[in-house]
Amino acid sequence: MKEIDMEITLSTTKKTKPQADKLEFGKVFTDHMFIMDYITGQGWHDPRIVPYQKITLDPSAMIFHYGQSVFEGLKAYLTSDKEIFLFRPEKNFQRLNKSNERLCIPPIDVDKVLEALKELIRVDQGWIPDAEGTSLYIRPFVIATEPYLGVAPSDRYQFIIIMSPVGSYYKEGIHPIRIAVEQAFTRAVNGGTGEAKTGGNYASSLKAQEVSDKEGYAQVLWLDGIEKKYIEEVGSMNVFFKINGEVVTPALNGSILPGVTRDSIIELLHHWNIPVSERQISMDEVYQAQKAGTLEEAFGTGTAAVISPIGEFLWQGEKLSVQNGETGELSKKLYDTLTDIQNGRSDDPFNWITKVEQKVIQN
Amino acid sequence: MKEIDMEITLSTTKKTKPQADKLEFGKVFTDHMFIMDYITGQGWHDPRIVPYQKITLDPSAMIFHYGQSVFEGLKAYLTSDKEIFLFRPEKNFQRLNKSNERLCIPPIDVDKVLEALKELIRVDQGWIPDAEGTSLYIRPFVIATEPYLGVAPSDRYQFIIIMSPVGSYYKEGIHPIRIAVEQAFTRAVNGGTGEAKTGGNYASSLKAQEVSDKEGYAQVLWLDGIEKKYIEEVGSMNVFFKINGEVVTPALNGSILPGVTRDSIIELLHHWNIPVSERQISMDEVYQAQKAGTLEEAFGTGTAAVISPIGEFLWQGEKLSVQNGETGELSKKLYDTLTDIQNGRSDDPFNWITKVEQKVIQN
Ligand SMILES: Cc1ncc(COP(=O)(O)O)c(C=O)c1O
Ligand SMILES: Cc1ncc(COP(=O)(O)O)c(C=O)c1O
Repeated sequence: MKEIDMEITLSTTKKTKPQADKLEFGKVFTDHMFIMDYITGQGWHDPRIVPYQKITLDPSAMIFHYGQSVFEGLKAYLTSDKEIFLFRPEKNFQRLNKSNERLCIPPIDVDKVLEALKELIRVDQGWIPDAEGTSLYIRPFVIATEPYLGVAPSDRYQFIIIMSPVGSYYKEGIHPIRIAVEQAFTRAVNGGTGEAKTGGNYASSLKAQEVSDKEGYAQVLWLDGIEKKYIEEVGSMNVFFKINGEVVTPALNGSILPGVTRDSIIELLHHWNIPVSERQISMDEVYQAQKAGTLEEAFGTGTAAVISPIGEFLWQGEKLSVQNGETGELSKKLYDTLTDIQNGRSDDPFNWITKVEQKVIQN
Repeated sequence: MKEIDMEITLSTTKKTKPQADKLEFGKVFTDHMFIMDYITGQGWHDPRIVPYQKITLDPSAMIFHYGQSVFEGLKAYLTSDKEIFLFRPEKNFQRLNKSNERLCIPPIDVDKVLEALKELIRVDQGWIPDAEGTSLYIRPFVIATEPYLGVAPSDRYQFIIIMSPVGSYYKEGIHPIRIAVEQAFTRAVNGGTGEAKTGGNYASSLKAQEVSDKEGYAQVLWLDGIEKKYIEEVGSMNVFFKINGEVVTPALNGSILPGVTRDSIIELLHHWNIPVSERQISMDEVYQAQKAGTLEEAFGTGTAAVISPIGEFLWQGEKLSVQNGETGELSKKLYDTLTDIQNGRSDDPFNWITKVEQKVIQN
């Protein structure tokens, strides 16, 4: 257990933990949080674990005006042996730094922050739910806090980690969703911020989501911002298609978020000798494949759902079903393999797991 | 003087006001602020003027994660007769509502909020600087405050107005700036949030600005996100060109902010019978005009500078000078006319001014 040099202030009162079957996503948070400050000239400083508490900022703090922020999302899993697993956490902090770079936010020290996260998890280890499919969702984020209305990179930031116990994404087992191909709105474009995990990308996606919700679709499929032809992502997930035996996913072109799950799936497919290619893929190609009967599977990938099979696309008023709206064999196999590794039910041949060494539990 | 039904809590201590010649933009704020809350089901409620104070939010408040926010910027001017003028404030609140619509934020009541603003200005009227070129900058903004990590429109918002006394934009008289045409980064694209005044647009612009700063250019000129050919805006300003006697500005195409200054200039030019057209204009057209000697003037327009003459463009490594780097006649005339109306030095033929009726000053 590495020691990192930081102040830890334990909360004197403990919150009541929600019941395992009542866990919702992102509404209840653990007893503690991690904070670290940045000031130009001084760098990142004062890393500390404190009781979960409100943030107090001047109304002119830049985050309220110019959206200079980045975030990450990852999970801690409690195995049946009561070990705590993180899935490729270094990837998330490396991606945070790529987002920081795009948003003119100073980089964090990946190793130190990972140690701090482990310590935070240890402090709140009693919060990791252990029922099938549950986990502790971890949200690291950076906000610009300088009180100044000039449009310029902030001179002050806070890096914060909060954690929330979350229920199983699939309460009744993995099942497909219906998605609508978005024609009017654009999520991201080359030269924009699409490959960064920054607030503005999500704010701009709300409107399309609102429209597709009303029509009964779970997520929207985003096309490229230029020709409105090429597939980018599905909601907050990367997307894969199995066409005629080959797995295809859009190449990382600058406007797509480089998903950790996406990367892991590509590695798994290589390992299984299933042909996989990262390339441009148009909605028209998917349409033609569906008509020809060669569209074998389609699925979204991300930390929240791991694999989200797609059972139907709505495109230009036409409904295109995939696998008769059922979960495909590959989707299921990928889901099982990844969740087995994450939950310690199988080996970890790719070295994806970081174990969080535990202290003796005091509470 | 209309009365609006709200609670006013006066601050017991007054801050020291900065000296007239030491005013910076957006760093010092007045003694009070306006706040109003929104909760789904309850609507906007509890409008109040309170002492200027910090905002306290849960770290899971949506504004820190998904950038759901909008803002406005306008100014109050103190005339030599000690009258308080606002320049087309209803336009700003109408635009705020257009931004709200795009960002899935509930609309505000334009009339009520304008009355609230007037009351806030009255409470802090001693803060409006009176030296030539100075004004009180007003920043209304809305932030999503629901403590929830789901990517969805928030169920809670705060609408806030803060105010900051600002110095003259041109300390040594109006003078031209040099701008760099941005080739790599994109500000906005059709189907995105370009025509809304939302944080994400500004966050995504920081990187390009950082690069052009280093090369000694004051602002970047944004091209369209699709063909990287057509002119959109200059930094946080709309842009106009005078070519061969005709004034041209990019048409409002969905990715450009509809500036209040832009709109006022078009009205003025019509009034003066100077040909003006809102249309697509490419950087190539500007280049050709410069080479042919028909590029007579170029200028940015916005609340901060009113008119910002452009003396030089950097495009594809080539420097293109405009008017030998001097302020053009039309730029100067527009600047004088607008600032004279705003400061009560001339008549207001277009009914652009809203007077803020004053109370007897107590402090
Ligand atoms: C826009 C977007 N795309 C893709 C993903 C999937 O990324 P990951 O697999 O790292 O969770 C996410 C979620 O993080 C996302 O927000
Ligand atoms: C992106 C952008 N374009 C243009 C403008 C100019 O608009 P206005 O004239 O209303 O100040 C602004 C400033 O508000 C802006 O932020």
